[in-house]
Amino acid sequence: MATAVANGPNKDEKRADCIDGPTNPMVTPLLTDLYQFTMAYAYWKAGKHNERAVFDLYFRRNPFGGEYTIFAGLEECIKLIANFKFTEDEIAFIKSSLSSSCEDGFYDYLRGIDCSDVEIHAISEGFVVFPKIPLMRIEGPVAVVQLLETPLVNLINYASLVATNAARHRFVAGKSKLLLEFGLRRAQGPDGGIGASKYCYMGGFDATSNVAAGRLFGIPLRGTHSHAFVSSFMSPDEIIEKSLLSCDGLKVCEDFVSLVHSWLSKLKWSQLLGGTFGETNQSELAAFASYALAFPENFLALVDTYDVMRSGIPNFCAVALALNDLGYKAVGIRLDSGDLAYLSCETRKFFQAVEKEFSVPHFGKTSITASNDLNEETLDALNKQGHEVDAYGIGTHLVTCYAQPALGVVFKLVEINNQPRIKLSEDVSKVSIPCKKRCYRLYGKEGYPLVDLMTGENEPPPKAGERILCRHPFNESKRAYVVPQRVEELLKCFWPGKSGKNREELPPLKMIRERCIEQLDRMRPDHMRRLNPTPYKVSVSAKLYDFIHFLWLNEAPVGELQ
Amino acid sequence: MATAVANGPNKDEKRADCIDGPTNPMVTPLLTDLYQFTMAYAYWKAGKHNERAVFDLYFRRNPFGGEYTIFAGLEECIKLIANFKFTEDEIAFIKSSLSSSCEDGFYDYLRGIDCSDVEIHAISEGFVVFPKIPLMRIEGPVAVVQLLETPLVNLINYASLVATNAARHRFVAGKSKLLLEFGLRRAQGPDGGIGASKYCYMGGFDATSNVAAGRLFGIPLRGTHSHAFVSSFMSPDEIIEKSLLSCDGLKVCEDFVSLVHSWLSKLKWSQLLGGTFGETNQSELAAFASYALAFPENFLALVDTYDVMRSGIPNFCAVALALNDLGYKAVGIRLDSGDLAYLSCETRKFFQAVEKEFSVPHFGKTSITASNDLNEETLDALNKQGHEVDAYGIGTHLVTCYAQPALGVVFKLVEINNQPRIKLSEDVSKVSIPCKKRCYRLYGKEGYPLVDLMTGENEPPPKAGERILCRHPFNESKRAYVVPQRVEELLKCFWPGKSGKNREELPPLKMIRERCIEQLDRMRPDHMRRLNPTPYKVSVSAKLYDFIHFLWLNEAPVGELQ
Repeated sequence: MATAVANGPNKDEKRADCIDGPTNPMVTPLLTDLYQFTMAYAYWKAGKHNERAVFDLYFRRNPFGGEYTIFAGLEECIKLIANFKFTEDEIAFIKSSLSSSCEDGFYDYLRGIDCSDVEIHAISEGFVVFPKIPLMRIEGPVAVVQLLETPLVNLINYASLVATNAARHRFVAGKSKLLLEFGLRRAQGPDGGIGASKYCYMGGFDATSNVAAGRLFGIPLRGTHSHAFVSSFMSPDEIIEKSLLSCDGLKVCEDFVSLVHSWLSKLKWSQLLGGTFGETNQSELAAFASYALAFPENFLALVDTYDVMRSGIPNFCAVALALNDLGYKAVGIRLDSGDLAYLSCETRKFFQAVEKEFSVPHFGKTSITASNDLNEETLDALNKQGHEVDAYGIGTHLVTCYAQPALGVVFKLVEINNQPRIKLSEDVSKVSIPCKKRCYRLYGKEGYPLVDLMTGENEPPPKAGERILCRHPFNESKRAYVVPQRVEELLKCFWPGKSGKNREELPPLKMIRERCIEQLDRMRPDHMRRLNPTPYKVSVSAKLYDFIHFLWLNEAPVGELQ
Repeated sequence: MATAVANGPNKDEKRADCIDGPTNPMVTPLLTDLYQFTMAYAYWKAGKHNERAVFDLYFRRNPFGGEYTIFAGLEECIKLIANFKFTEDEIAFIKSSLSSSCEDGFYDYLRGIDCSDVEIHAISEGFVVFPKIPLMRIEGPVAVVQLLETPLVNLINYASLVATNAARHRFVAGKSKLLLEFGLRRAQGPDGGIGASKYCYMGGFDATSNVAAGRLFGIPLRGTHSHAFVSSFMSPDEIIEKSLLSCDGLKVCEDFVSLVHSWLSKLKWSQLLGGTFGETNQSELAAFASYALAFPENFLALVDTYDVMRSGIPNFCAVALALNDLGYKAVGIRLDSGDLAYLSCETRKFFQAVEKEFSVPHFGKTSITASNDLNEETLDALNKQGHEVDAYGIGTHLVTCYAQPALGVVFKLVEINNQPRIKLSEDVSKVSIPCKKRCYRLYGKEGYPLVDLMTGENEPPPKAGERILCRHPFNESKRAYVVPQRVEELLKCFWPGKSGKNREELPPLKMIRERCIEQLDRMRPDHMRRLNPTPYKVSVSAKLYDFIHFLWLNEAPVGELQ
């Protein structure tokens, strides 16, 4: 131990050097609850502040009525840990916030604090995880680890919740659909928005509209135009610069607007489409033509500002066909209101009729994006009704996790000074699982995960091919023998402190996203379904089971019926 | 106009100088949707980017099933506006995100953009507001104002939602209760937490646990200790430093722990209390005694780690009575689980019995804080059952706005180049109200607000004592004559751009909070009640009504039944 301490600081400084601070500069050691400081003072005053404590960070129930959760937010936690240090200004503020009777020595102690003696094991970010299993195990001087409670819980809570929400939306939408996160404006604050973009991408979305998030995390960006853009135009007459170079750069169309007009009349008088619409809205036509002049290679139009089938779609097709004459292929349309199932099908028919009538190859397959207050339920309803949507833009329900806006991540003391601790509660589901633990995932013959298993730190690890008794932590009668094909240790060392262990690398977001998708694919389908999913089993070893119940009886006062 | 332009820059520079940037450094001009940039490019390409546009920012429905909303977030918006400027790095990123065919001139244009030509009128922050009435009216070059859409909506949406949620919790809790915001760990990201603390305080909370928010905004801080603190102790024997100076500084109690022990046995053998408890938990007793030694003037104990009535309360009273011997007055207890109505009443009885038995004045009034997953409904249920709680610590439901996690703030073009614009929709509630408008609040004889009224910019303002026809914007038959006692113009100039108008000051948070409380007090009670509140009336002038319907007919395509 002495050697580790002696070697520690240099190694740690090097580590801290290569890990940037949290994405949001507001994530500082002050981003915590006041009681962490009052407790730190009380620990310090009692001479207990350096007692070695182990805390587990976990949640008690999967969100959204499902049976799985995506673990997210770890990288930001490690970034906080790596740079955890109070500034003089911060210490002055803490001093002004605590009782004036607090001794000055405490502030000297705070001055010296960092996380060089904290050890963090965690499940890898992007993993599918389950209730009660520690997502992180944080070990270190009790006063320091206590200060970390609030920011770590904050950073994991929403990240895991929204990543899970994204994964659930992907599950319903299906793998072939393009999923776009459009939530910034409705998110809970600026980094509610930025976090949402990061973790929705992690959970399986393809792109975001959020430019800041695109820049910070390298997430692909998507976006076209709004209703305001459409209504900002009055008529095509106001378009001054009307020329457009063809896609191959060989010819110039001098009056693209006339070309659009001529296509609009061809559409109006065509055999297949004639009679489905009359006069289209001219401000809309002007907006579409202008947008196409600006982005001939990326023409995607919002078609519901006035009337989808009587104005938006014919106007879009006129512009798209004019672009087609110049060798450009229009990207598609976006529907932002109305009956999306019906409108997408009608739109598809219209596109197919255009393909047929004017012999434009692939025009029938022009992309349809839908984006009006979508959520898991509406995606499911669309699937059941039948639709022709290729891409979904999802905002409010996705980023605010409307169906369940909070995940109950908790942070519980499980051991101090090598003494296991338990938190009791009249509600059994709130009783904590004591002891510094190891966690394993046991896989079955078909490659599916079968059960997660917690054991005491020093128990021999379960081995593939061996028969292992897995017990429900609180329900005596629930237990099963398992012979795993493969055993995976879940908690890895992401911050070694002075332990001398290797530190797991923090992979890039894209890699975490791939891992997450792979993890989801590997789950047994009945755990994943939306209706009545099967709970995944979470268990403790026989030895840990016995110890929990010994400690429980030991701590609980014996009642007297009166 | 030329003069204004000539005078402008200096004045604006001065203005920008005296307004700090947004609290969260992540709020930059890139915190917007990609489509704002694609539209900006299309406007620029069409030579339309400098056309003067007016946008309204408003919401369509009050949240939480209520009939009022608190307007919040304005200061952060003005801070963004005052410092709105792209850096070269940001421009390089935008360039990399748009099509490579976009012309370089556009990036030069972006380089020159700021908000010196943008004019913002808004309702004052902390006001009670209603659907459809513009909270902000943003006027300026269409491309610039379009870029502001996403960040402004983001900054208003959650701020107003959570301030409203706080006001609703205050309404149910009653004015005499202390309301503490404890939500940081469950908030949607770090500044979900920081924003929650700011806007819950604005909406009527008294304090927060969030140290960073306390520092940023001067909000009072509160907090004591957690369950982990309690379970980190094993027994009172481990307390080494046992001496405590009396409150008056005149004597030293050499063994405070023994004093606590002696009080615990007095309690156990007392006439009134004997038999209600047996052996209390010793780790809890040690934790309480240690906490009291650290904070003798602020002793508040969490009493439900093991068993409230059989352990927590007797242990607390033993420590509180020992403190009392030394002239200190214990603050109180916190309950974080179980039946709060029952436990608070039992605790109160216990405290009163202690007061009587040991003649400790006011001991019966020792403060009781409750904090377990509270929300409007549980507060209401507690009131109905009867309880003895003095203070509430509220977290998850408050800060995530669990009952409704998003407010649908929108940003709609209402005029461009002096031409009024309308956004139609098959859903009448989604049709926008066109024209650059003025908004007024009309007060009745009893001082209550009666109705909000929108008029065209150039209509003569309504006057106190005059008879005014107020019309529902979309429902022909809903109209009423009003003779207001007082007329208040709602939209004030918070960013004058080049208009030469005076800029309203941004008041300190405490003042906004007072204004908000005053505004809420002024509302007619039937608008405020939780069950079936009366909708507050929002209207347009007769002239604006006629114009809306003229424009509507003009823009809507005529259908054909098939």
